[in-house]
Amino acid sequence: MTDKIYVIGHKSPDTDSVTSAITYANLKNALGMKEAVPAAAGDINAETKFLLDHFKVPYPEKLTDATDKKVILVDHNEMAQAVDNLNMENIVEIVDHHKIGGLATGKPIFFLNEPVGATGGIIANLYEMNNVPISKEMAGLMMSAILSDTVLFKSPTCTPRDKTAVEKLAKIAGVDPMSFGMELLKAKSDVSSKSAKDILLGDFKKFDFSGTKSGVGQIEVMDLKDLEPKRAAILEEMNKMKDAEGLDMIVLMLTDVMKEASDILFVGNAQAAAGFEKAFGGKIQNNSIYKEKVLSRKKQVVPPLEGAFKK
Amino acid sequence: MTDKIYVIGHKSPDTDSVTSAITYANLKNALGMKEAVPAAAGDINAETKFLLDHFKVPYPEKLTDATDKKVILVDHNEMAQAVDNLNMENIVEIVDHHKIGGLATGKPIFFLNEPVGATGGIIANLYEMNNVPISKEMAGLMMSAILSDTVLFKSPTCTPRDKTAVEKLAKIAGVDPMSFGMELLKAKSDVSSKSAKDILLGDFKKFDFSGTKSGVGQIEVMDLKDLEPKRAAILEEMNKMKDAEGLDMIVLMLTDVMKEASDILFVGNAQAAAGFEKAFGGKIQNNSIYKEKVLSRKKQVVPPLEGAFKK
Repeated sequence: MTDKIYVIGHKSPDTDSVTSAITYANLKNALGMKEAVPAAAGDINAETKFLLDHFKVPYPEKLTDATDKKVILVDHNEMAQAVDNLNMENIVEIVDHHKIGGLATGKPIFFLNEPVGATGGIIANLYEMNNVPISKEMAGLMMSAILSDTVLFKSPTCTPRDKTAVEKLAKIAGVDPMSFGMELLKAKSDVSSKSAKDILLGDFKKFDFSGTKSGVGQIEVMDLKDLEPKRAAILEEMNKMKDAEGLDMIVLMLTDVMKEASDILFVGNAQAAAGFEKAFGGKIQNNSIYKEKVLSRKKQVVPPLEGAFKK
Repeated sequence: MTDKIYVIGHKSPDTDSVTSAITYANLKNALGMKEAVPAAAGDINAETKFLLDHFKVPYPEKLTDATDKKVILVDHNEMAQAVDNLNMENIVEIVDHHKIGGLATGKPIFFLNEPVGATGGIIANLYEMNNVPISKEMAGLMMSAILSDTVLFKSPTCTPRDKTAVEKLAKIAGVDPMSFGMELLKAKSDVSSKSAKDILLGDFKKFDFSGTKSGVGQIEVMDLKDLEPKRAAILEEMNKMKDAEGLDMIVLMLTDVMKEASDILFVGNAQAAAGFEKAFGGKIQNNSIYKEKVLSRKKQVVPPLEGAFKK
């Protein structure tokens, strides 16, 4: 039997990562690459479960060790965010919408990165370009990926193309995008049953900012007050993880999707604190800096951190 | 006035690099990016001149210093091959067909890399996807890029897509592709008037193979005998350049496009020699290893060198 090719998103998989794995594997199957199977590089979150259950799509296989495995990367292109023990030579393709992250391969591969709100919209476009019909289920997944990643079009990462794609996909999926999107957001932002650790790791990525080893997480809620009772425990969890993994800092965006603002928590050493304050033009107070209109890690948090730590 | 955005290929520009700059700038202009202008990161070669003269297309501006300039990279995606003083943050887009070379950006950008024979075919596809009509001149340039990069379809980098693209483009350009391709090859392989240095630098790229600083060049001729009288002078030039630039080795493929074989010249230190011999499974004799069926630097020379030097 031919070896499987795992279509897989980043660690701490979010909805765009998981649905991109499922929908792109489905497209590759339709195009003749029968060995493509979707996978998730960790446990899938409450939002994604709600979504897959709604459209009756099976959960993808969990793959946390890519030793000797061929993979197609979706929704990430940095080794630091990829499944463990991945050999760069085993990367077959990449489809993503993030910054270009320094990955190198020995051979030419298909690599498509577009500055749009979600990988889901890029994949929807690839279905169209290849004249592969989109099923109700796949349309629902790709539409939801865009709604989730752009926080219902509110994120500055959102482009006109994302809106057009959601419009098209919603028709095929047979749902009202905005009301379905609100259901997704509610599933995502229900923190009542989540532990501090779950909140920290729910959407967490590692970065290396010119030598400053960092973790940057994000949690989106309908109201920041929901997180108040857990704030101390979250900070404790951040400190614990920083020490255990030998990081210089951990940043966690507590994002209020209704107020469109983020309370950006910080733990780290003095040098990292200076960089963090420089990045956001403020002083850390009560372990955080509060920023109006900051919703996007990719566009509004990672680039200023990168700039602040540049040597 | 808006700042120019330079669409530019790699140093030691070949036909695919120069025509991709011209044709992609033309496409971006058509799509509304009026500030896109084609550029070449060095002197254009005899083949490209013949081609541009034939289709009466003006030579692109020469740009050898990218300080503070915005660029779109075509036909390369490694900083080592890019125009000097390029700031990664000033890269607006990338369209290429090589291995992924470790470049990093601070923001998401459009990056399309496809494992096909030439960047020209990818750009032709982008015209189609965007419903932009292709003029006779642009068709001639993109067709020629594919014919040149795939050595008239003989290179192992050639894919069915390249052949289909040439077929379509030749109709628009109004030329017979194979006979026009032979004229291109003749223009490219006329070495009689070329100095040893011209031959070495005509299509030369730098690589870093796990710390082994290298240069890998290629010259294609209709008959290896044409190069015989210049062999000693070429080797001397290779040694001179290796010392002047502090490289560990220089490799130069003397490629016989009719016999479909390459005499691969080597100069370098003992450690590099061991890696070179490992890469090509032979012993260096008379400063070279002769390999049947080896035509492609990208697919048949760079990957084995990369493998041989991997630590």
